[in-house]
Amino acid sequence: MEAEQNRVSTAADRLKSVDPKVAKRAFAARVDGRLVDLSSPAPEGAAVEAITVESPEALEIYRHSTAHLLAAAVLELFPGTKLGVGPALVEDPNYGFYYDFLPEKPFTPDDLDHIEKKMRELVKRNLPFERVEMPKAEMLRLFDEVVDDKLKCELIEEKGGDVVSAYRLGDQFIDFCLGPHLPLTSKIKAFKLLSLAGAYWRGDEHREQMQRIYGTAFFEQGELDAFVRQREEAKKRDHRRLGPELGIFAFSDKVGPNLVLWLPNGAFIRRQMESFLYELQVAAGYDLVYTPQIGSNALWETSGHTKHYRSDMFPEMDCEDGAVYQLRPMNCPFHIEVYRTSQRSYRDLPLRISEMATVYRYERSGVQHGLLRVRGFTQDDAHLFIRPDQIQDEIERVWHLASTLLSTFGFEDVRVELSVRDSQNLDKYIGDPAVWDDSEAALASALDAYGVAYKRVEGEAAFYGPKIDLKVVDAIGRLWQLGTIQLDWNLPERFELEYIGEDNRPHRPIMIHRALYGSFERFMGVLIEHFAGHFPVWMSPVQAKVLPISDRHNEYANGVAEELRAAGLRVESDLRSETMKSKIRDAQLKKIPFMLVVGDREVDERLVAVRDRKNGDIGSMPVSVFAERALDLARTRSRDGLSREAEPSEAHSAEVPAPA
Amino acid sequence: MEAEQNRVSTAADRLKSVDPKVAKRAFAARVDGRLVDLSSPAPEGAAVEAITVESPEALEIYRHSTAHLLAAAVLELFPGTKLGVGPALVEDPNYGFYYDFLPEKPFTPDDLDHIEKKMRELVKRNLPFERVEMPKAEMLRLFDEVVDDKLKCELIEEKGGDVVSAYRLGDQFIDFCLGPHLPLTSKIKAFKLLSLAGAYWRGDEHREQMQRIYGTAFFEQGELDAFVRQREEAKKRDHRRLGPELGIFAFSDKVGPNLVLWLPNGAFIRRQMESFLYELQVAAGYDLVYTPQIGSNALWETSGHTKHYRSDMFPEMDCEDGAVYQLRPMNCPFHIEVYRTSQRSYRDLPLRISEMATVYRYERSGVQHGLLRVRGFTQDDAHLFIRPDQIQDEIERVWHLASTLLSTFGFEDVRVELSVRDSQNLDKYIGDPAVWDDSEAALASALDAYGVAYKRVEGEAAFYGPKIDLKVVDAIGRLWQLGTIQLDWNLPERFELEYIGEDNRPHRPIMIHRALYGSFERFMGVLIEHFAGHFPVWMSPVQAKVLPISDRHNEYANGVAEELRAAGLRVESDLRSETMKSKIRDAQLKKIPFMLVVGDREVDERLVAVRDRKNGDIGSMPVSVFAERALDLARTRSRDGLSREAEPSEAHSAEVPAPA
Repeated sequence: MEAEQNRVSTAADRLKSVDPKVAKRAFAARVDGRLVDLSSPAPEGAAVEAITVESPEALEIYRHSTAHLLAAAVLELFPGTKLGVGPALVEDPNYGFYYDFLPEKPFTPDDLDHIEKKMRELVKRNLPFERVEMPKAEMLRLFDEVVDDKLKCELIEEKGGDVVSAYRLGDQFIDFCLGPHLPLTSKIKAFKLLSLAGAYWRGDEHREQMQRIYGTAFFEQGELDAFVRQREEAKKRDHRRLGPELGIFAFSDKVGPNLVLWLPNGAFIRRQMESFLYELQVAAGYDLVYTPQIGSNALWETSGHTKHYRSDMFPEMDCEDGAVYQLRPMNCPFHIEVYRTSQRSYRDLPLRISEMATVYRYERSGVQHGLLRVRGFTQDDAHLFIRPDQIQDEIERVWHLASTLLSTFGFEDVRVELSVRDSQNLDKYIGDPAVWDDSEAALASALDAYGVAYKRVEGEAAFYGPKIDLKVVDAIGRLWQLGTIQLDWNLPERFELEYIGEDNRPHRPIMIHRALYGSFERFMGVLIEHFAGHFPVWMSPVQAKVLPISDRHNEYANGVAEELRAAGLRVESDLRSETMKSKIRDAQLKKIPFMLVVGDREVDERLVAVRDRKNGDIGSMPVSVFAERALDLARTRSRDGLSREAEPSEAHSAEVPAPA
Repeated sequence: MEAEQNRVSTAADRLKSVDPKVAKRAFAARVDGRLVDLSSPAPEGAAVEAITVESPEALEIYRHSTAHLLAAAVLELFPGTKLGVGPALVEDPNYGFYYDFLPEKPFTPDDLDHIEKKMRELVKRNLPFERVEMPKAEMLRLFDEVVDDKLKCELIEEKGGDVVSAYRLGDQFIDFCLGPHLPLTSKIKAFKLLSLAGAYWRGDEHREQMQRIYGTAFFEQGELDAFVRQREEAKKRDHRRLGPELGIFAFSDKVGPNLVLWLPNGAFIRRQMESFLYELQVAAGYDLVYTPQIGSNALWETSGHTKHYRSDMFPEMDCEDGAVYQLRPMNCPFHIEVYRTSQRSYRDLPLRISEMATVYRYERSGVQHGLLRVRGFTQDDAHLFIRPDQIQDEIERVWHLASTLLSTFGFEDVRVELSVRDSQNLDKYIGDPAVWDDSEAALASALDAYGVAYKRVEGEAAFYGPKIDLKVVDAIGRLWQLGTIQLDWNLPERFELEYIGEDNRPHRPIMIHRALYGSFERFMGVLIEHFAGHFPVWMSPVQAKVLPISDRHNEYANGVAEELRAAGLRVESDLRSETMKSKIRDAQLKKIPFMLVVGDREVDERLVAVRDRKNGDIGSMPVSVFAERALDLARTRSRDGLSREAEPSEAHSAEVPAPA
């Protein structure tokens, strides 16, 4: 009893003394502002707070502990396996955690089942996550001589402080780790292993190749079930499969990895996207320009890219005459040079310069992820040159344009993040810190003024200014980063931009960088998955396919196709001698919005029997009636199909607003 | 007399003996197929032919002799001047000849007048062009010791054979020259010196800097007068001045020489050009693609560009991972890779793949010539993959498309050149000579079949195939090279392209490369000069400007502008407190098609007083009537303005043909 009284109380003790119920639900604790294990000491007088399901930090701890659970299970099954890192992933839509392993014999996908089974067993055994601390030298000796993991020694050597912590779980597992962790494995309620991939030790392709096991974990089984359903749905919609199948894009080894070939159907859809945005932008007072994809080093030195962005750029082109050119990773300096082609007055501002502008960035890893990770892409980029008194109005107008654009594709739920400097790493950024403070404040107040809820994210700013990131929620609930809006006092300074003010004296404009689609490549990747390939009528390369029931209806079918084309629809006819079932299946696979079946009755009564790709048969109607209804969907950029009701629903239509 | 009888007869003698009249008109002669002076020996038995005004070779000899006349005049005025080269220019629309000089004291533009005067004096003196021949060593001694021209010695050393020829004229001039020349200066009837420019000895910027005097010469004074008038008109239309003035394009030293910034007005016009062509191409069964501007060396090695086109390409980009990328100078390999993304059947052909595709070519000389010599440009490029039985039909279709496109801009007179191999230099070309023969023959017979007159040009083929060049005559009679149509058996071979034939076996397709505008940059340069900046209504960034007479008409002016914008016209109003005269002048300078003057009467009667930029005042009319007439011009892509007649003339309209 005496010993216990003298013992320093733990965080768990302290929580229990306040509210045993909360203590029971706690995953970890915050003691004097620091996240720690429940078993960590928490002297009287220290502020103690429970981390529960409701805490923003809970998921990371929960998934991190599940990663340890995974590694413990692996070691039980495959003793001798060496461990890489095993972090939680909280922002990643696809995975919840991973652990890298160097097994004695490579894992097969089948092993995942056994490992997951072993994990459940360890949960049932309700094992503690046990923290051990010791001086660095002692920890190194432990990992060198007992654990026999030289790679881990390298990491401890480099990252460990004077006292190093590690966590044990079960009989086999121990790893260098800062924690905190859950108290017991029984806290883990719902998890699943997802996949097996290759990875390099410390991400370095010249080092040991390891195997990475991905998994995820949720607080509740229901959440995990929803995730699994979403994942299955996402698999069906995978743009990497659908894109080439639908003739949207392809890659070619000869051209180079991660360089996109837009195939005819994809190019058609992209052109619709471009035209739509162009219309919106003309109405919103934007000017179009075209500028080169390369610039001389004089440009990149002035802009600061050679210094701050070099590693993301393709190598230099050194010309005979001593000139050095580089492929552009960004368009800003070019639009700045357009600004500089003439003297500007305060009356000329805002000057809104836009371009469908292709840029190239040298992604280090050649890993393909379809359209989501490419080395060349086209941004719907614009740069607004404004007076200081125009910031708020212009940010609002950009936000309005973004909402109009995105909602047309059904992205009604737009999440906003305000990305500011990494306060730990200020020398990554160019320009005066006071100017940065102003920029960050100006963006925040513009968002506030417009009543837009946003999340502030440290360290995600561009090197030349803070930005607003626009994320959308797709049809199956996933979050995607698309466009950005950035405020910039720095580049106008570096390029010494000026306008003549009302006072007849030179002033410096401010720039807003903005892209709303972000890039056509990425947006198309997202769109394919969002629509599962069922592009709205206005975007569909082929809007309707005429399917004659037999050869004797071919002539009528061609006539119908001709009539519809003359009316302005994109129509083909399928005159192959195939069964109707197979013709319908083909049209379905090609995601064609409307199938127009024609047989004896249709020929006699000059009708088409309309089959909507989603709603199925919706009955027969005169060709002109179908044309009118389909054209109406296209004109209003509706995402609807046709149904038996006389009129398409108005809920999902979005017309281009008339010019202001 | 005896001496004379023994003398070998000259070409002149021989011609005189046949027809003294022809002999008198002769400039030079062809003896046994070789062009020679009239004073050259022509033994009995040799075939002799007169070169007269009617001969295709005459102009070059005539201008070459005028160049000698120039140099002779220079030496009379400025003894001690050293001579560079002095060729005739026959194809160049701007100049007829030049001579490079290294004067002891630099020439000024004023010197040109004196020199021209001296030339006329030498013509009057009727001096002979005297040919001298001597062994190389003797000639070298002459130029070293007597003429004292070390540069010329360098040239004689390098280019001279065993016996070297030179020509004398007057007392001072002698130059190393192959000839032939006119017999006497009195043969030169009409010439003019045009300008003074810098040039390097042998075009090498590391060598001596010389001065170049440009001039021209014609057989008749009338031709020269017409040339001078065209030149003055061309100066007024110079796109290098008008382009930046009208906000069409600009250059930036920071971006790099010869890289174009398309400013908002230029980008707008380009977009109209793109959309028009896109419409035409959709109707003609073309597919659109977008492909990257860079490709890995694997691509360029397969295509043969690294071997045959290296010197026109920007330097390589050598990446860390060993990959090498290059900016594309052509698009063909990318469209080929698009073709290769799926198995093609004979039913899929022709496959017509088009792209508004930006390419980069490393022009050695950084000399600027506005949009006519740029290092990055966007082609309206297409590649047609066809079966052998489709050649003629497809060439005809392309020709038809080209005519429709070009005639819309008023280029009714399209001249066709068939460019074939340089028979002296066959190793410049890739592929089987038999295949080349077939290709050249196929193009010729397609042109014949369509009844197109053409000129055959040796040595202008691309390295992978023969081509048809399309040249147009502009509004002031100048000839411009624009688009090309090329036939290609070689690249399909190199990339091993296939389609499955009706026989179910693989066959090799043929490619047609074609660009109709050629490049947007060049076409725009030509168009600015062709229209003198007066772009047709459909292309004009601002179609009408409303000009209120005084402030009290501003509100009405704004209302008119709004009404016209709602009707679909691009309209601005000029509300500045300037005089009407100055408002009209500004609108004229901006080449805006219509000025709509509004004063008391217009406000009262709801009218606009329409002033056409070319036809001047054409009277008042209701706003809606103006809108209808202006929109009609735009819709039909007419090049007309509005005049007092009720309806615009139909002569210059070109509608997009309906899809076939």
